[in-house]
Amino acid sequence: MKLVIAAAILSSAIALDDGLARTPPMGWMSWERFLCNVDCETYPDSCISEDLYKRTADLMASEGYLDAGYDHVNIDDCWSTFERDPVTNEQVADPDRFPSGIKSLAGYVHDKGLKLGLYSDIGTKTCGGYLGMQDNLELDANTFASWDIDMLKVDGCYQDTDMMGQTYPELSRALNATGRPIIYSCSWPAYLDPDYGEANDGEVLKELAEICHLWRNWDDIRDDWGSVSSVIDFWKRNSTDDPFIQVAGPGHWNDPDQLMIGDNGLSHSEERSQFALWAIFAAPLIMSNDLAHISKESKEILLNKEIIAVDQDPVGHQGSLVWSSEGSGDGDTYGGETRVWSRLLNDGSYAVVLQSTHSMGTATKVKLESSMLEGWGEGVKFTARDLYAHEDLGEFEGEMVAEVWPSDVEMFIVDLV
Amino acid sequence: MKLVIAAAILSSAIALDDGLARTPPMGWMSWERFLCNVDCETYPDSCISEDLYKRTADLMASEGYLDAGYDHVNIDDCWSTFERDPVTNEQVADPDRFPSGIKSLAGYVHDKGLKLGLYSDIGTKTCGGYLGMQDNLELDANTFASWDIDMLKVDGCYQDTDMMGQTYPELSRALNATGRPIIYSCSWPAYLDPDYGEANDGEVLKELAEICHLWRNWDDIRDDWGSVSSVIDFWKRNSTDDPFIQVAGPGHWNDPDQLMIGDNGLSHSEERSQFALWAIFAAPLIMSNDLAHISKESKEILLNKEIIAVDQDPVGHQGSLVWSSEGSGDGDTYGGETRVWSRLLNDGSYAVVLQSTHSMGTATKVKLESSMLEGWGEGVKFTARDLYAHEDLGEFEGEMVAEVWPSDVEMFIVDLV
Repeated sequence: MKLVIAAAILSSAIALDDGLARTPPMGWMSWERFLCNVDCETYPDSCISEDLYKRTADLMASEGYLDAGYDHVNIDDCWSTFERDPVTNEQVADPDRFPSGIKSLAGYVHDKGLKLGLYSDIGTKTCGGYLGMQDNLELDANTFASWDIDMLKVDGCYQDTDMMGQTYPELSRALNATGRPIIYSCSWPAYLDPDYGEANDGEVLKELAEICHLWRNWDDIRDDWGSVSSVIDFWKRNSTDDPFIQVAGPGHWNDPDQLMIGDNGLSHSEERSQFALWAIFAAPLIMSNDLAHISKESKEILLNKEIIAVDQDPVGHQGSLVWSSEGSGDGDTYGGETRVWSRLLNDGSYAVVLQSTHSMGTATKVKLESSMLEGWGEGVKFTARDLYAHEDLGEFEGEMVAEVWPSDVEMFIVDLV
Repeated sequence: MKLVIAAAILSSAIALDDGLARTPPMGWMSWERFLCNVDCETYPDSCISEDLYKRTADLMASEGYLDAGYDHVNIDDCWSTFERDPVTNEQVADPDRFPSGIKSLAGYVHDKGLKLGLYSDIGTKTCGGYLGMQDNLELDANTFASWDIDMLKVDGCYQDTDMMGQTYPELSRALNATGRPIIYSCSWPAYLDPDYGEANDGEVLKELAEICHLWRNWDDIRDDWGSVSSVIDFWKRNSTDDPFIQVAGPGHWNDPDQLMIGDNGLSHSEERSQFALWAIFAAPLIMSNDLAHISKESKEILLNKEIIAVDQDPVGHQGSLVWSSEGSGDGDTYGGETRVWSRLLNDGSYAVVLQSTHSMGTATKVKLESSMLEGWGEGVKFTARDLYAHEDLGEFEGEMVAEVWPSDVEMFIVDLV
């Protein structure tokens, strides 16, 4: 927990170097799938309760998710009461839905080899109207640490955005001062209007990287392809040299929000696309689904260890768009386009995603040229491995062509011969 | 082929009573999946060629689609040359891609027990730039009839929409005069700007019903949920008493465009939604997919005989929206809504679809009340059968509640006890 000291010494450097989140956090979060359902009488299997998190922890441990790296079970909104403890002023978990309390739940989760995440809000209330942290940052940081939580997502409802430049750093210091290692997930700058986080300059992002381990950089995700596509398009607009991409690295990550894999709104092609691209983005891999009811195909995507390895690459360069067919007039007659994304890995190889955003037709041939990859130049020889087919494809010279289906991707590791 | 006579006698009545399309046509069409790919060298398995239609016909016969009612194999755009025969002025199939010619292909398809559909355009060119019918309506009708085709889709590119009120009826008479039964699929009024078919009054629709067996009533569909949803939303806006719904019936159907089931852009929930709702709409069930590569789940939806029976109900009432949660403030916190659709069937029972357009969360409880169904009133006793689970659910009194997942539907037949 060297945060405060390091920030003081290296005020212009990225300094959240406390040993946490050296690779993007992985796990599960209740929000997208279970929302703020507090009606346990009508919906006993899907309401926000300790039972939901215990069942999920059981499945994460027994079904291979923990082995694959998904080690966080994260409570989201609507776990608390509406009033603080009248004596201690502390936050309190809803006694009907969390009868054992959060600390006991943390113990349960820890016994499975997992970590527990909690949710709160920097403002006076959470987005769901539950207890917020404003004016109680230090108290709540201490309470949460005393409950043995391992990660804290702090939302940005019910606070003037002008205050966030002070409150988010203040909470960072308070969490640091607890002495407990807690991954700190911020919702700033996503709340900054009017561009919802997009208009921030590099200075704001450098500050973020000094105080948060991850931060929601843009709009909330929903369980449909239109929403997931809009998040992907953000990373098309804010590409290679953008401060958002430059600032990502070990200990401080952009968070494009939860994985919608295993839910209801994405096709198999669209699920493949989200997973491959989140790995290019060096994004936290936080599922939000019902692990008791998930298709074999969705589970196979989530447990793809080769793609997870890209996401978790230790050097932590966020990848970016390196080519798109937009404006080339090439094969985009019926709307959509083809794209090439790349991410430089620790061993000097590149992870590459070839994407089609077409919404009609069959597969389109998409060409990766070696000159698209920084430092490679034209005509070089390289090998390729297909990360969805788990297959070595042999040697190529200067270019490689893959057939990519509408709404789908192909993903490769390419390496110089 | 009593079209002309009947229209003369009953000028104000719906009169396309030639025995064709007494239920909505079913089959397969190349457009959405195979588009205008004419590069058979690069894409031998997906270019527009007689081979594609033969392979599809084989699979429709061998894989149970024909048995389920899908009896049309429909060629779409890009099958012809760019120039008419210099001697006869007739349209000509591309000799490289259709070396045996259309008549021979019709023979192949007929031998399988299937029917062949063809495509052309009422204007000077097709949308893909191939031969159009304008100024050659009678000649082309005769040519196509001589090729033994069974259905003709006539697109509306490259013609002034002001002319369509004359040309579409003229072609109807020309097809009728050939003496061959040919289902006539029109693209009018979909081409009428600015509301793309939505602003038409009942008179235009009655005329359509006299000249076309089916007509594309609105925007083109694409292989993504945003597109399919927008088509569904058209039928929310134009509900019960709308002329579009009133005019549908045996021999004349609204065509909300192809099924995207078995393609790349719809999730399992979204595929279930499209199929159930197309049956409520009394819509033509025209697939556009690759039957050689289709998942078990998608095939099971397409071959659901209970839902097909709703679509093909002999009385041919188009169903409509009877309730939506929009504006009720009931459970729609995170966007989307729940809806109840119904369709009165020949035996007096109703087909009912409960739909959720939510894109977050788990299942929502949606209530069907007997008073939502015309003629039933409050509190009546009824039975229900689940058409996806193939299960009788027993008796209900006044209401029935089902859990509906985001982007999904549940579909029932309900009948008075």
